[in-house]
Amino acid sequence: MTLPRLNEIEEASRRIAPCIHRTPLLVNESINRMTGARIYFKCENFQKAGAFKSRGACNAVFSMDPGHAAKGVATHSSGNHAQALSRAAALRHIKAYIVMPRTAPLVKVNAVKEYGGLITFCEPTLESRENTLKEVIRHTGASEIHPYNDLRILTGQATCAMEIYEDLKDIDIIMTPVGGGGLLSGTAAATLYRSPRTRVIAAEPRGADDAYRSFYGGRFMPSVNPQTIADGLLTSLGSLTYPIIKEHVSDILRVEEAHIILAMRIIWERMKLVVEPSAAVPLAAILENTERFRGSKTALVLSGGNADLDHLPWKQ
Amino acid sequence: MTLPRLNEIEEASRRIAPCIHRTPLLVNESINRMTGARIYFKCENFQKAGAFKSRGACNAVFSMDPGHAAKGVATHSSGNHAQALSRAAALRHIKAYIVMPRTAPLVKVNAVKEYGGLITFCEPTLESRENTLKEVIRHTGASEIHPYNDLRILTGQATCAMEIYEDLKDIDIIMTPVGGGGLLSGTAAATLYRSPRTRVIAAEPRGADDAYRSFYGGRFMPSVNPQTIADGLLTSLGSLTYPIIKEHVSDILRVEEAHIILAMRIIWERMKLVVEPSAAVPLAAILENTERFRGSKTALVLSGGNADLDHLPWKQ
Repeated sequence: MTLPRLNEIEEASRRIAPCIHRTPLLVNESINRMTGARIYFKCENFQKAGAFKSRGACNAVFSMDPGHAAKGVATHSSGNHAQALSRAAALRHIKAYIVMPRTAPLVKVNAVKEYGGLITFCEPTLESRENTLKEVIRHTGASEIHPYNDLRILTGQATCAMEIYEDLKDIDIIMTPVGGGGLLSGTAAATLYRSPRTRVIAAEPRGADDAYRSFYGGRFMPSVNPQTIADGLLTSLGSLTYPIIKEHVSDILRVEEAHIILAMRIIWERMKLVVEPSAAVPLAAILENTERFRGSKTALVLSGGNADLDHLPWKQ
Repeated sequence: MTLPRLNEIEEASRRIAPCIHRTPLLVNESINRMTGARIYFKCENFQKAGAFKSRGACNAVFSMDPGHAAKGVATHSSGNHAQALSRAAALRHIKAYIVMPRTAPLVKVNAVKEYGGLITFCEPTLESRENTLKEVIRHTGASEIHPYNDLRILTGQATCAMEIYEDLKDIDIIMTPVGGGGLLSGTAAATLYRSPRTRVIAAEPRGADDAYRSFYGGRFMPSVNPQTIADGLLTSLGSLTYPIIKEHVSDILRVEEAHIILAMRIIWERMKLVVEPSAAVPLAAILENTERFRGSKTALVLSGGNADLDHLPWKQ
């Protein structure tokens, strides 16, 4: 197991400080009444490029040596990592090559373009994505920056929990959603160093529950054909994130789709925050398991705010 | 002209402090790039009951003497004032009698009920609203708290700009939307005392432009059949607010409906904030008049966040 060291996380915090927001922790009394817990929401929906992914992407891009950096970075992603990596590369004045399925929504394509990412389209299969990325790298010499199975990314994501522990003491539970596990394993590492008595609990959609199955099954079992509205959480754990999660996470709670939508609407309506479905998954888990959280001081990460405003999930 | 005195506004700030949020000022780089101005958004969408109206309502309710307070408060409103007054009354453990047209959306009726307001329904005409309110007051002995034409309300709304001037120096322009003018005249008073060189500019929907016409026509001309998506701004100025606005406001800018919707969407998409249409009117005015704002340091009030999540204006 490769766990980022404390000094590496601290170094990442300093490295990315000029490129990211220090996001606030917000509380909401009506949600506290609803759940019986004291919940602190870390607003990564306010983060640069709209998601915590800017932390990892900036850490990866700005820790590259000048020789490698000059040839650019590359990834396959149609989500927040693509935008965050494009933005981070632009800040370092290097190129970001983004492989996207040709079926990606126009809004996501445009967001990557807006940050200066250079897009290569591929077929919407993992095989085509990986092969196209290999091609792009062979032609350009760019360095691959994987969205989560990369120690620099994972270390960057750990800075989010570091800020939470700076702002708030005596946290009983810290929660994140889990997709590839970059945010979750980074959070677990930061917790180990900064607040070892805090329990790390992940929340995962039932329709994309590879982390849950792998965690309780004792071996890595990737998702086959995952389905969830939380499109940031369709990915499976990686070889780097799974061992950390297995060792340092207390529990993984699975949630129903209807509860993700309900939790998302509560956050919009009560907190007046635009969050994407993935960001609502931890609150959905609390709402499904109120007895476990009642009376606790719980911090949770609102992972991103890049919701599709033309297609709200509660609209028929 | 009755202008609240500085010590009255300061007293209101102290009086309402336990009942309201001190809301943050947020900035957004992409909106600054878009407009060429430095814009500071005062987030009253995060305010208790979802709008700045909680300031005036709390000031009015908590400045009543015990004898009058015991009989409760009353108003006719289907909007944010009704919710804010119901909440303020509940905090003082007195009754709030709310007269609402029977056509009011269920979501607004339920919001008032949730805060403990006692609703009397009437016909959806001003005459019926006023007569029903008189009846309610005759039966209950409650004190009428008008949504804006009341010095206690106006003084409460002035506390919003006081906070802005505490947090931010050297503001060139301060902007609010204008409906009945409570927020605008309160802002003008606070500006006079705290930052006299700051220009107070109001923004108003073209379809409900009584403030513009009254301001430039030199006499009070209420709206007849106003039409705008910014449903918080359908009301006309009052006898208390008009003279203050005439004397202490620099300009009133009218905006197109399409630009209100565009500005609202920009705030949701870029700032990840849920705001109601009325709150987007000042940004719409900046977008329509970028040359006037370019290079300026402008503070504007995001007046509220009680948007109807089931009916977004950009949805066909």
